[in-house]
Amino acid sequence: MKFIQTPVKGMQDFLPSDMELRQHILAIIRGTYAQFGFNEIETPVMEHIENLTGKNGGENEKLIFKVLKRGADFQRGLAKVKADENGNLASEGDELADSALRYDLTVPLSRYYSCHKNDLPTPFKALQIGNVFRADRPQKGRFRQFTQCDIDIIGDNSNMAEIELIAATSKALTRIFSEVNVHGFTVHVNDRRILRAMALNAGFPEESVGEVFIILDKMDKIGIDGVKEELVREGYDEAAVNTYIGYFADLEDIPKDREGKEQVQIIADFITRTCGDKIEAGAADSLATIMQAAGGMIDKDITLKFDPTLVRGMGYYTGTIFEITIDNYSFSIAGGGRYDKMVGKFSGQDAPACGFSIGFERIYTILKDLNWAPKSESEKKAYLVDLKSASARVPEVFAKATAERADGRTVTVEPLKKNAKFQIDTLTKAGYTQVIKIYADTEL
Amino acid sequence: MKFIQTPVKGMQDFLPSDMELRQHILAIIRGTYAQFGFNEIETPVMEHIENLTGKNGGENEKLIFKVLKRGADFQRGLAKVKADENGNLASEGDELADSALRYDLTVPLSRYYSCHKNDLPTPFKALQIGNVFRADRPQKGRFRQFTQCDIDIIGDNSNMAEIELIAATSKALTRIFSEVNVHGFTVHVNDRRILRAMALNAGFPEESVGEVFIILDKMDKIGIDGVKEELVREGYDEAAVNTYIGYFADLEDIPKDREGKEQVQIIADFITRTCGDKIEAGAADSLATIMQAAGGMIDKDITLKFDPTLVRGMGYYTGTIFEITIDNYSFSIAGGGRYDKMVGKFSGQDAPACGFSIGFERIYTILKDLNWAPKSESEKKAYLVDLKSASARVPEVFAKATAERADGRTVTVEPLKKNAKFQIDTLTKAGYTQVIKIYADTEL
Repeated sequence: MKFIQTPVKGMQDFLPSDMELRQHILAIIRGTYAQFGFNEIETPVMEHIENLTGKNGGENEKLIFKVLKRGADFQRGLAKVKADENGNLASEGDELADSALRYDLTVPLSRYYSCHKNDLPTPFKALQIGNVFRADRPQKGRFRQFTQCDIDIIGDNSNMAEIELIAATSKALTRIFSEVNVHGFTVHVNDRRILRAMALNAGFPEESVGEVFIILDKMDKIGIDGVKEELVREGYDEAAVNTYIGYFADLEDIPKDREGKEQVQIIADFITRTCGDKIEAGAADSLATIMQAAGGMIDKDITLKFDPTLVRGMGYYTGTIFEITIDNYSFSIAGGGRYDKMVGKFSGQDAPACGFSIGFERIYTILKDLNWAPKSESEKKAYLVDLKSASARVPEVFAKATAERADGRTVTVEPLKKNAKFQIDTLTKAGYTQVIKIYADTEL
Repeated sequence: MKFIQTPVKGMQDFLPSDMELRQHILAIIRGTYAQFGFNEIETPVMEHIENLTGKNGGENEKLIFKVLKRGADFQRGLAKVKADENGNLASEGDELADSALRYDLTVPLSRYYSCHKNDLPTPFKALQIGNVFRADRPQKGRFRQFTQCDIDIIGDNSNMAEIELIAATSKALTRIFSEVNVHGFTVHVNDRRILRAMALNAGFPEESVGEVFIILDKMDKIGIDGVKEELVREGYDEAAVNTYIGYFADLEDIPKDREGKEQVQIIADFITRTCGDKIEAGAADSLATIMQAAGGMIDKDITLKFDPTLVRGMGYYTGTIFEITIDNYSFSIAGGGRYDKMVGKFSGQDAPACGFSIGFERIYTILKDLNWAPKSESEKKAYLVDLKSASARVPEVFAKATAERADGRTVTVEPLKKNAKFQIDTLTKAGYTQVIKIYADTEL
């Protein structure tokens, strides 16, 4: 059988320089979140297939990698696969798999919390960094295995959770990007309860709210006119569509600064005008508190903006939603929101939950495209032993290296290769400031 | 559909205290290997199924988790599944899977090196830390997803590679275990070429060498008499068996100290006596150099021992093999060896390679069983806001926390929960030395 050199389609190998950049970014993220009191946890990359196909993952559920059952379980599954009227076997693989690779970290966290809640603090501030898997069409910055960094607060139904999440994520991002002088972050904040009240107040029927969200979510790509056209095309009442589109007409008036009471008043007015009596009690106040408190915590050059067009794809959000964008980049680099109903699906008892996920691969790709590399902190030394003339000196060179390593230095000992120039150039590029060739008479 | 709270069978969730211990160990491993000049890399957890079923994995190949093909590929695979004479579908799943989860890090590294060798230094000193997957029967310290930490040197055919690997791995382990006052390490060293020559010299036929190794490998469990019995039972010539067993009769005479030339001479005598003219040129000298040089580098309280009973399961080893044990523990905590023929299976061109893998889960389990926890380095502070009386003070408390975090402190801000005692106890246990309850009149 022939072996294949390239990684599996859509997956990545990382060179040493890639890894240095990735670990540098991860160290900033870990350090920042630890300072905010988040506790790192880990869950397996494999999950029960039931947990991944229970409508928590939206479109992502179509992209899961299923893992084949084994042994007798596989044979029993295979026996359930039937032939159709043409004699062809018909299956989507569900009989053959009982687990799959996770598509996000939120479903595993909800399972984890419901399993271990008696051993966890309340509220529980969790950090999870791990690989997730989606059989997406591979494209730039989008992979089939990729790293996510999620913080979540479970067990806090107050909006202190949202404020901490926004402040912590903003701080991690500014720490990462200030090193490459990239600025221009916008934190977009909205609330599913406001989105819902706007749709109902415009005259859309209760059962259509989900579909209206999906169409509104395309605003970025098709613009306000595109949204209007699609709503009409889908057969919604034109009066409702016109009223709804009207709500978004003067978005420019929503201020982006976050000082003073003026912003709070303008947002309150917007909500009153667009939501009428359809808004749930407390939703408007919640948003105002978040905008004020988070506004006081994040760096001054970050824009914090109430964005009534923000939808976020996942069906599980129940309240506040947020997303972070950078000027001149077309994609968001972090997103999240409140999902108060998911833990209950595992434990039978709802627990308030809110999370913010950093799109690690996008950040990594931006920094890599800028050709940025973290500075190597320590001096590094290489001994290259010419084995033709100095093989007897190997123990001596290793003894020297051992002593220097004991002093905390980074030292490599290698045979001097035929192509010494290439070897030395590579070491120099990797940060070795001293490269010493050892011959029979080299003094050590 | 009901959701399942527990992790997938044989896989682990890690609590925050578990993660602190794991990351503490990993930081020591990363720091030590970096000091020795190893470069961290990463490969995907999924591999092409061809690469995982090509006889590089020995018994592990029976334990792979196969990943279902998707869409049209899956349907085409299903069409190839045939019914047997009884009308039952017959398949082992091979038609349905084109990738699988890796069972070790050595096969992915060989693929990686052959794919990227033009972008890598020569010799290439690689560190890979990652999860591997085996559908083993779960038992204490053995899991279906577990972390391995491998260092490998590719492109160095001299025994400087072995010396660096032994020195680096020993240093990492002593750094980890000195903190819990666990000592008594033994580094066992052998060479497949010696093992092979001993079997041939005793009179076993060429084609039986592999099976003789498998039986010898059981020495730990069944003793020398058990090995003898099993060889006879398998029908080998009794004279050959007696000669062979005789080689292992006076193992006690092989010295465990590693000072002076005496050890080298005794080992040389052993090899001459047991291998005769069957030994490959250079093998005995290679072992002697490794014992001498590595002996000079590792800590004085580590035993470095030539162990002619050491076999190591994998079929791919071509030269030196090694393993590390701790007194009073029945399992090895690290193992590896030279595998000069594997890279060639990917690139078509052999590259010398040698690796040492730390059994991370075993080390973690030992430290966890000792109830050992790394010391928290920084002072931590918690503000617990009573939202009934002091909700208006939320922005003020967050502002204070923001200022303290900017000074580098770890601060959490949370609502004061009904069960304040439990909340405060949990925070104290997690290292929060200051826990401040905020009411309407609390001074900040």
